[in-house]
Amino acid sequence: MADYTLFYWPIPFRGQFIRSVLAHVGASWTEADTTDLVHLKSSDPAQQAVPFMGPPVLTDHAAGTSLAQTQAILTYLGGKHGLIPDDLLQAALTHKVIADANDVLYEMTLHNGAQMWTATSWTAFQPRLERWMAIFEALGSENDLSAEKGFILGTEAPSLADLVTYSLWGVMTAQLSPLRSVLDRAAPSISGLVDRIGALPAQKALWHQSQEQYGDAWCGGQIEASLRAVI
Amino acid sequence: MADYTLFYWPIPFRGQFIRSVLAHVGASWTEADTTDLVHLKSSDPAQQAVPFMGPPVLTDHAAGTSLAQTQAILTYLGGKHGLIPDDLLQAALTHKVIADANDVLYEMTLHNGAQMWTATSWTAFQPRLERWMAIFEALGSENDLSAEKGFILGTEAPSLADLVTYSLWGVMTAQLSPLRSVLDRAAPSISGLVDRIGALPAQKALWHQSQEQYGDAWCGGQIEASLRAVI
Repeated sequence: MADYTLFYWPIPFRGQFIRSVLAHVGASWTEADTTDLVHLKSSDPAQQAVPFMGPPVLTDHAAGTSLAQTQAILTYLGGKHGLIPDDLLQAALTHKVIADANDVLYEMTLHNGAQMWTATSWTAFQPRLERWMAIFEALGSENDLSAEKGFILGTEAPSLADLVTYSLWGVMTAQLSPLRSVLDRAAPSISGLVDRIGALPAQKALWHQSQEQYGDAWCGGQIEASLRAVI
Repeated sequence: MADYTLFYWPIPFRGQFIRSVLAHVGASWTEADTTDLVHLKSSDPAQQAVPFMGPPVLTDHAAGTSLAQTQAILTYLGGKHGLIPDDLLQAALTHKVIADANDVLYEMTLHNGAQMWTATSWTAFQPRLERWMAIFEALGSENDLSAEKGFILGTEAPSLADLVTYSLWGVMTAQLSPLRSVLDRAAPSISGLVDRIGALPAQKALWHQSQEQYGDAWCGGQIEASLRAVI
């Protein structure tokens, strides 16, 4: 039996943040069937293993617990596997990176597809997208990150913040390739970092498997179609 | 000199989550001028004390550090002042409550005012709003929370998760009073909890001061006007 079960749609997006950490720590997991996810999601909150609105949900079988919300699942796995620095400020910056990533996901999908992209709205969004990239770049620069070496919080080894940075910018620009040159220009150290994280054997194996399963999907749905139409 | 400076708009909304924790731990803080916030917000990320997109930003003067993102600031203050349980799962559930609260703020404001409420969209949103309330209620019920006693994670004293729950549902229903009966019905234990937290002397004093400063504002702007028009 696998260590964990992940309830998420068959796309990268938020799920890939969890998968990336599970792969990094060498955990085994099963991806729940979409029908099981839909059933769980539509259940009464009082009947759910953890009361939640939307996936991802992760079940830790050994601990007999389930958790919802990407940020909470990442905190749980990061704490369990020593991927969050002990220092109070560095731990808080880890949560800042996670929250920034979550905001970028919302903005890139116009809040999970509440609206669709048009050429006009996408053009207007470009300075803001580049500013998000620059925000990650500036955090890395403060901690001596360069295109060639280092990690975003200045740790000796990759921490949760690096895996999150990879799952955001690395996965996004792999699936939406016209954005890679934007990242290279606006955040060259982050481009280097995500390449180095993506080259770790566990991440390489995960990504190979994810591409086989999800093809070129990123966030999925109509919002991805509208995104591809404008980029 | 105050312990902290908070950069936020003169409204409750996200800022109140930080203010509530600062008040709870007896810290002193100065609210930065809006002109200073606007200047800081529009600076190049590489020049900012902490690279960020939007407020709140909190400066800890003794530590000589600044932090952005509500979640990260709450994690920092909660860790510093022992408001996050040591247990891995309870700590992760604290982050779940914060992430849920953040999602509710986004949904109540149609992603910070990206769209405006109409009677139709507000009516369509009601089951989802009540489900969010039921999600908080179910978490509390698992931990023996009742309208009369207890805390949302089953702790002996109020933890960060309780302060967050209060800052979300207590403050929202205080400012948008027609929603109070919805909370009473969908999440009676949460109604009781937010009343008990709001009755703590530090929270009572903070709320008195906030009402003097912000009047009946909640999220502010055109989106608040559109919200008040439909509720």
